[in-house]
Amino acid sequence: MRIDGRDYRTIWPDADRRRVHVIDQTLLPHRFETATLADCEDAARAIGEMKVRGAPLIGVTGAYGLALAAWRDARDAAIEAAYALLLATRPTAVNLRWALDRVRALLLAAPVSTRIDLAYAEAAKIAEEDIAACEAIGEFGAQLIRKAARGDRPVNILTHCNAGWLCAVDWGTALAPIYKAARAGVPIHVWVDETRPRNQGASLTAFELLGEGVPHTVVADNAGGHLMQHGLVDLIIVGSDRTTRAGDVCNKIGTYLKALAAHDNDAPFYVALPSSTVDWRIADGVKDIPIEERSPREVTHISGRGRDGASIEVQLTPDGSPARNFGFDVTPARLVTGLITERGVCAATEEGLKGLFPEQAG
Amino acid sequence: MRIDGRDYRTIWPDADRRRVHVIDQTLLPHRFETATLADCEDAARAIGEMKVRGAPLIGVTGAYGLALAAWRDARDAAIEAAYALLLATRPTAVNLRWALDRVRALLLAAPVSTRIDLAYAEAAKIAEEDIAACEAIGEFGAQLIRKAARGDRPVNILTHCNAGWLCAVDWGTALAPIYKAARAGVPIHVWVDETRPRNQGASLTAFELLGEGVPHTVVADNAGGHLMQHGLVDLIIVGSDRTTRAGDVCNKIGTYLKALAAHDNDAPFYVALPSSTVDWRIADGVKDIPIEERSPREVTHISGRGRDGASIEVQLTPDGSPARNFGFDVTPARLVTGLITERGVCAATEEGLKGLFPEQAG
Repeated sequence: MRIDGRDYRTIWPDADRRRVHVIDQTLLPHRFETATLADCEDAARAIGEMKVRGAPLIGVTGAYGLALAAWRDARDAAIEAAYALLLATRPTAVNLRWALDRVRALLLAAPVSTRIDLAYAEAAKIAEEDIAACEAIGEFGAQLIRKAARGDRPVNILTHCNAGWLCAVDWGTALAPIYKAARAGVPIHVWVDETRPRNQGASLTAFELLGEGVPHTVVADNAGGHLMQHGLVDLIIVGSDRTTRAGDVCNKIGTYLKALAAHDNDAPFYVALPSSTVDWRIADGVKDIPIEERSPREVTHISGRGRDGASIEVQLTPDGSPARNFGFDVTPARLVTGLITERGVCAATEEGLKGLFPEQAG
Repeated sequence: MRIDGRDYRTIWPDADRRRVHVIDQTLLPHRFETATLADCEDAARAIGEMKVRGAPLIGVTGAYGLALAAWRDARDAAIEAAYALLLATRPTAVNLRWALDRVRALLLAAPVSTRIDLAYAEAAKIAEEDIAACEAIGEFGAQLIRKAARGDRPVNILTHCNAGWLCAVDWGTALAPIYKAARAGVPIHVWVDETRPRNQGASLTAFELLGEGVPHTVVADNAGGHLMQHGLVDLIIVGSDRTTRAGDVCNKIGTYLKALAAHDNDAPFYVALPSSTVDWRIADGVKDIPIEERSPREVTHISGRGRDGASIEVQLTPDGSPARNFGFDVTPARLVTGLITERGVCAATEEGLKGLFPEQAG
């Protein structure tokens, strides 16, 4: 997608595939820089420090991390060690394990000498599949937006966190329908939840929408209920870090509160997700999805751009007040109007999901 | 209440009543300073810039503002001008108009030469009444907390924004029950919503609880739903800036989202308020309460303590992304378990309120 009129992806290998490049998302929106991943440890650090984040992108970065590991040592033990290192970086999103499992299985079944080539090819394939899935999600979701359009009045869409192209390789999940509809001329205005504590909405989603020229307004996470009470939200679209087979959705902390408000105000609440985020093994999201707890410092401190343009971290809380930092929450399926997947829109139920993905039934 | 072991109120006049002093709440939690109000314009600015904030304290500051105005000119036209100036500072809280109406009516009915004395006496009386009301709220609310106690396990209470003694003259509204129960030895732990965009939870509520030695944890506003889903909240207590006679509650933006989560998880949701925040003229809060919209800069920028200890403002959003900043939202009475008032706890209904305040019936 576009930054300052130029097209980017979030991750790409060198021509000789010795290194992998990513957009360093911790510096956005104030500075655009790429980071180079030279080995598996770099990939693990980039995921852990959230230089790359978002369920689909974490999966692709994990896949490239195994490819980078294969350069150094492509034997079974080394592949297993790299797999364990990468898997431990983030516990909630299921795409990471999905992508790592896929590449590991392929490599372990192949002669050691072929593994570097195989790993890069598979990582690239996962990236291309993700782009295709996101683009399909965009097309299906854009139809929902078109249906909500009323003449020249913009369709007001609220989104939480960043489920745009920066969370994937291109297009994104929740924002893909917005980009597809906006490019097709549907008038749209996006309410951007700032998404404390890491502010991926205020930084990444706002940055993306600026780049694509989509009108938007940043609001505090607290504002969504008020907006919906006053009819200022036509639909809500968010992403998912893990979806149970019953349609429960685990997404950035605070998503559940917006789903409750949508339900209380009869606003349609959609979740956009590639099927790689579905964890077919589990049904009850509240009970069975591990919720990452991150550093309290992300709550007690915040970084932004100072007057001289440099990034500065400031302390928000008094010395001596502890904080806790839960990364995700679970929105029960009963609050979800529909799931937008790469194969179409379905009810947030086991029947709905298995209707679109019959290969998972039985 | 206590700061560093010393007792304070939030507002007090000089011995000679020529000036009024307040704690400058914009500097907390990192710096404790008082500000001096020398005239009515100072009082209006202190309210507008939120050096003083919270419905009860705004009312008392407005009353002292009229007293300060009377020093300069106590004739009708000057009192009316000061009244208009002060009333225009904040539109949502009803205590401001209530206190201003009360002092104005008294002054206009009295000889000009007596008005300075009368104004100070009435402002002091409003302050003392507020303290007594808050202390009574504390006693009634503490009984609810005691009932929730289970042996040595702390009672987990979630609160939003700051409805502590800093929002009133002393004791506070939502925090008064916590202080009363804690001083009586009930084990308590408070989840403190940081309360973006102005972070009154992370700054003021955390600061207050530190001063009183009450265990607490600061969380992002987004976290409350997750905490309630996992049984980590025994009850919720918040304040109110305006309450309708039907029990709808207008409080800091985001309160409604917590009430929805409480309802969805069967957690008791109480609102603590002195009856001066009840607007007996209106029933439907969503329709009839004007919601203050403040500067977008409170969303796009945030201040905190830099490494050298000085307060620094940093920019969170990209240049070119607009923001909006709604100050309050309305929680419908159907989501409120009970109202804690200075006369006891009642249902959030017209019958409930008029049962405790029969002088308002008919």
